[in-house]
Amino acid sequence: MSIYVQKYGGTSVGSPERIHAVAERVARFRAAGHDVVVVVSAMSGETNRLTELAEQVGGAARPREMDMLLSSGEQVTIALLAMALADRGWSARSFLGSQVSITTDSNHTKARIEHIDTDALRDCLANGVIPVVAGFQGVDPSGEITTLGRGGSDTTAVALAAALTVDECQIYTDVDGVYTTDPRVVANARRLRSVTFEEMLELASLGSKVLHPRSVEFAGKYNVALRVLSSFEDGEGTLITTEESTMERPVVSGIAFTRDEAKLTLVGVPDVPGVASRILGPVGKDGIEIDMIVQNVGADGTTDFTFTVKKADFKRAEEILSQVCETLKAKRVIADSDIAKVSVVGVGMRSHAGVATAMFDALAAENINIQVISTSEIKISVVVAERYLELAVRSIHDAFGLTEEPISED
Amino acid sequence: MSIYVQKYGGTSVGSPERIHAVAERVARFRAAGHDVVVVVSAMSGETNRLTELAEQVGGAARPREMDMLLSSGEQVTIALLAMALADRGWSARSFLGSQVSITTDSNHTKARIEHIDTDALRDCLANGVIPVVAGFQGVDPSGEITTLGRGGSDTTAVALAAALTVDECQIYTDVDGVYTTDPRVVANARRLRSVTFEEMLELASLGSKVLHPRSVEFAGKYNVALRVLSSFEDGEGTLITTEESTMERPVVSGIAFTRDEAKLTLVGVPDVPGVASRILGPVGKDGIEIDMIVQNVGADGTTDFTFTVKKADFKRAEEILSQVCETLKAKRVIADSDIAKVSVVGVGMRSHAGVATAMFDALAAENINIQVISTSEIKISVVVAERYLELAVRSIHDAFGLTEEPISED
Repeated sequence: MSIYVQKYGGTSVGSPERIHAVAERVARFRAAGHDVVVVVSAMSGETNRLTELAEQVGGAARPREMDMLLSSGEQVTIALLAMALADRGWSARSFLGSQVSITTDSNHTKARIEHIDTDALRDCLANGVIPVVAGFQGVDPSGEITTLGRGGSDTTAVALAAALTVDECQIYTDVDGVYTTDPRVVANARRLRSVTFEEMLELASLGSKVLHPRSVEFAGKYNVALRVLSSFEDGEGTLITTEESTMERPVVSGIAFTRDEAKLTLVGVPDVPGVASRILGPVGKDGIEIDMIVQNVGADGTTDFTFTVKKADFKRAEEILSQVCETLKAKRVIADSDIAKVSVVGVGMRSHAGVATAMFDALAAENINIQVISTSEIKISVVVAERYLELAVRSIHDAFGLTEEPISED
Repeated sequence: MSIYVQKYGGTSVGSPERIHAVAERVARFRAAGHDVVVVVSAMSGETNRLTELAEQVGGAARPREMDMLLSSGEQVTIALLAMALADRGWSARSFLGSQVSITTDSNHTKARIEHIDTDALRDCLANGVIPVVAGFQGVDPSGEITTLGRGGSDTTAVALAAALTVDECQIYTDVDGVYTTDPRVVANARRLRSVTFEEMLELASLGSKVLHPRSVEFAGKYNVALRVLSSFEDGEGTLITTEESTMERPVVSGIAFTRDEAKLTLVGVPDVPGVASRILGPVGKDGIEIDMIVQNVGADGTTDFTFTVKKADFKRAEEILSQVCETLKAKRVIADSDIAKVSVVGVGMRSHAGVATAMFDALAAENINIQVISTSEIKISVVVAERYLELAVRSIHDAFGLTEEPISED
């Protein structure tokens, strides 16, 4: 008998009707003879409602009380889903994080799981009872409720899957898998049958909001077979797995992009050691996250230093950089928020030289100017003017033939 | 330094603004040098919202899951109130029932408190932290969340007050105390400065929905000084206390009434032993609650047997009684739902003969026919036609001079 962990997100349990649909799906798996441990999020909208209440009483910055507050959301869903399962004649039992128990550190609102006791869940399964576990929440060693931060329910699911050594951890969501790129931009984008953990990390952190990077990392670390599926329709979704498990990989798996970054360049910086940290130190100290960092070799004893930040942080980063410009006696600051980042992702490109060339050719053919280039082991990113984003993505998607199913896939 | 338990009901914490007002009140008590343990209910409307969700997933009859579901309501309020207190610079800490811990039996949806561990709360108070405790909920010995049923938050407050031996247990609600009768019926009804636990029980169970009888009983048993106050305005409210604590009691404290009963009479029942249980047995077996029961001595070997039920149960009770009528070969059933019950309540009437006479005289003076009379130690109840209810209550209220402050009260 196989064991599955199935995780259903907020949209999948967003109404009584949706909860019935989830119960129906879980019941079908049980009826087929599989053991299922279900993990659920708060109903969609609930976390926002609670956060607004917290803001209205002036308490959004109280981490312990925020955890007390927000963890009530999943508590509602586990009870409702256990009821819906019972209503179908299946024995089910809801579990709070503390009841499992899922022990975390005491880092409220962004706790890390330290230990999962699987005895109670195994008891349930042995007795034919379907455990329904609250995602996102845990309990610290002194009995305080903690939450795991963004993407927390996915992390709960993966952690349970690892602790129970299940056959597959299924993440049900409102999309039916991971695509070669966003289908809203490229109409004939194709659902991937499988991607590697590393590719998924690059795709997720670059804006494909299917899975939180943390849960993917976790799954990779503990080698949990992870599958993303739709809770709204049937289908095999996308399997996220280790590189070894597929015989041969396509060179490029997908095209990720984001419009949510802005670009800042400090021109004419003295090209001396330590200058990078003197530029980025003040920006980072202010809590601004930095994504791309590019510095080219200097010619005349100075260099140009470019980095990207979230658009929301753009103005603040620009102010800080102007001060840095004075301090470092650099020439000037070029700030541009009308940009987009496009990335080609693929484990296969490690051993293939021509990927970069193919990408640049595709952009050149459309007369799209590349402003910045940055590469990593399995990713090549370029910054282009924001108005070219769709055109750039489509042309690269075509150039790598991503619409067709690759022969090498099973 | 005095210790107070303050309990705030659903309306008192029904919005962020109301929660701020409660925080303000609690802070005032703390600033005056008192220790306060706060108990709160779910925000008004929340329990109904959750119950509807449960019904929509077909789970309202699953007690364990209902407790899991409903207990989330108070969890939200304790977090929000702790936040609002912190926002005012007071150190506060929310407590789930399980975190206190408040141990109950395993009787889901109507659990009884078995033990309260006061260590964590006393620690808080010793460190100047205001504990904010979730009412209505507890935890059974195996770690399951339980709820205490209707009026549960009041019970939590009284139980905490008893366990902590506080100076006073203050129940804040949307009325400013216990009145001699409903001010909507008698405009010059007067707020009572104090009533005895027994009187409060009779007043509460007869329809004055200020306090749940169970919490009053509990307070009486453990001799907890209980005060009902308004959370919307300042005032001293009504103190509920033991008989001994007031030097002399007025004869009558208040007039309670209900429109929510219906009357059933079985006429011409053979006057033999065991007949009462043969009549009421089938009714009770069907889960119908019976309030008044009146049987007069028979004259011709038969007797008439009258009882009252909730209006919602009237039709079902009538059907059952018709069958009983056949079985017992009684003459007939008289069923009447157009009735009201009016009761005079007062500990003082134990030693005063004339109360019944004064009550009946007042009704006679208004030509109101009394259909049924029933008496207990501290209460006389009559059933009259529903259309006379207001007139009956007003005339009795006048007859006992309840509008004037009694001289004997302190």
